[in-house]
Amino acid sequence: MHLNENEEIDIIPGTDLKIIQNRKRFSYGTDAIFLSSFGRPKGLVLDIGTGTGIVALRLWGRNRAGIEKIYGVEIQDVVAEMAKRSVALNGLEDKLEVLHMDLKDLGDKFGRSSIDTIYTNPPYMKSGGALLNGDENFSISRHELKASLEDIVRVASDLLKPNGRFYMVHRPNRMVDIIYYMRKYRLEPKYIRLVQPRRDKSPNLLLIEGVKHAKEELKFYDPLIIYEDNGDYTQELRELYYGAE
Amino acid sequence: MHLNENEEIDIIPGTDLKIIQNRKRFSYGTDAIFLSSFGRPKGLVLDIGTGTGIVALRLWGRNRAGIEKIYGVEIQDVVAEMAKRSVALNGLEDKLEVLHMDLKDLGDKFGRSSIDTIYTNPPYMKSGGALLNGDENFSISRHELKASLEDIVRVASDLLKPNGRFYMVHRPNRMVDIIYYMRKYRLEPKYIRLVQPRRDKSPNLLLIEGVKHAKEELKFYDPLIIYEDNGDYTQELRELYYGAE
Repeated sequence: MHLNENEEIDIIPGTDLKIIQNRKRFSYGTDAIFLSSFGRPKGLVLDIGTGTGIVALRLWGRNRAGIEKIYGVEIQDVVAEMAKRSVALNGLEDKLEVLHMDLKDLGDKFGRSSIDTIYTNPPYMKSGGALLNGDENFSISRHELKASLEDIVRVASDLLKPNGRFYMVHRPNRMVDIIYYMRKYRLEPKYIRLVQPRRDKSPNLLLIEGVKHAKEELKFYDPLIIYEDNGDYTQELRELYYGAE
Repeated sequence: MHLNENEEIDIIPGTDLKIIQNRKRFSYGTDAIFLSSFGRPKGLVLDIGTGTGIVALRLWGRNRAGIEKIYGVEIQDVVAEMAKRSVALNGLEDKLEVLHMDLKDLGDKFGRSSIDTIYTNPPYMKSGGALLNGDENFSISRHELKASLEDIVRVASDLLKPNGRFYMVHRPNRMVDIIYYMRKYRLEPKYIRLVQPRRDKSPNLLLIEGVKHAKEELKFYDPLIIYEDNGDYTQELRELYYGAE
C-alpha cells in the first residue's frame, strides 16, 4: 500500500479495520467516532462528505450484518483518493465505494427515494471567513463552500426512502438551522443526543436523527458525557470508542 | 380578601409577594418558577396565558427596577378573576394588570412592535385528546384548545419591538415545533437551557429565549440540574427558587 508524505495507517477504534490518515491535513476527529456510533445503518447507506472515509469504514466495521453497500461521497479529489486507498487497504472494494462527486449530482446517480440510511459529518462553519488559511481542501472540510447545510438536508431528503434515516453530527450553535431545514424538507427530527464535555456543562456537539415523513415528536437521549470530574474519560465514552457492537 | 372553596394564600418563593391558589384546579408548577427565573424582563412586559398570575407576579417581585408594567393575559374567566384578586392582595393594581381576553386580540389592543418582553408558559399538549376529563378550564391550561403554539409565536412576534425578548418554557418533545415557528416568524432562538432531573438524564423541560430579528446563532446554557445523586435538591435549584435577585 503506497503512503504519501505525512500519511500513516491507524486502527479504527472498535473495529478490526485500518485507515490512512494525513497528520497534517486530513485526520478524523472524535465527532466522526460519535457519529459512527449513533443509530444503526441498514440497506443502502450513503455517507455524505466522507473525507478520509472514517464514518463509512467504521459503520461497516460495526454493522456489517444489516448493510447492503455503503457509498462515501467526497468532493475533494485529494482526500477522496486517500479514502479509496483505505477501502482497498481493507479489501472492501465490493462493499464500500468512494464517489468523487458533488452531492448535488447524487439525485441523478441514485434517483429519488432510493437510499435507506444517510450519515453526514458536514462542515460546521458558514462560508464567511473561509479560505483564510490558503489551503482550499482544508477549508472545504470546515466551511460550507461547496454545499450549504440546506443543500445537504434537501439532497438527503430527496434521496431517502420514506421512513429512511438521516444521522448528522454538528455543533449546537447551528441547531436552529438544522431543525428548521429538516422540518422544511420533511426529514423530521426524532432523536437528539447532546455531547457534553462534563456533566454540568453545556454541549459542544449535537447528534441528530431524522426520519423522512415521520410523525412530529422529538425525543432527547441522555447526554453523552466525555469526562469525569477527575478528568478521566467516562466509562460510556470508552465503551463507545472501543466497545464491541 | 375573599377566598373561594379550596383556595389558599401562599408566599411566592424568592419574593415578598403572595398568591392565591386553588389546590384542586389551579396551582402553579415548578416550570413557572424556572420560567420566571429565566432572562430579564424590561419595559412593557406581557405574560401570555398567565393562569394564576404566578409568572407575572414573580417577575415583578424579582425585577421591579427594570419593569414599566406587566400585563398578564388569560382567556379562562375563573382563573383570570383569581389572578386579579392576587394582584389586589399585593396592592399591585397600578403595576400588574390581568387582561381577560383572547391572545388573538392583543394586536388590536397594543399594536404591532409595542412590547419589550414576552413570557409564556403555554399548554404543553396538542389539542387531540383534550376535554376527556370534563373540566374545560383544566383542559385549556394543558391543551392547545384556544391557541396553538404557532398562534402564540406569531402573536408574540407581531407584538414585540425589534430586539424584543421572548421567553418560553415547554417540553423538549415539542422543540422542533418551537424552533421551526420561532425561525418562521423571525423570533430567532438565541439561548436554550435544558432542565434535567439528574446530571446523566435527558431533559424534561426546555427554557428558550428568542430575540426578534436577531442574528442566527444559538447558544446552550449549562443544563439546570434538579436533583443530586442522593436525591437532595441541587444548590443551584435552591438558589433559583429562594435566592435573592
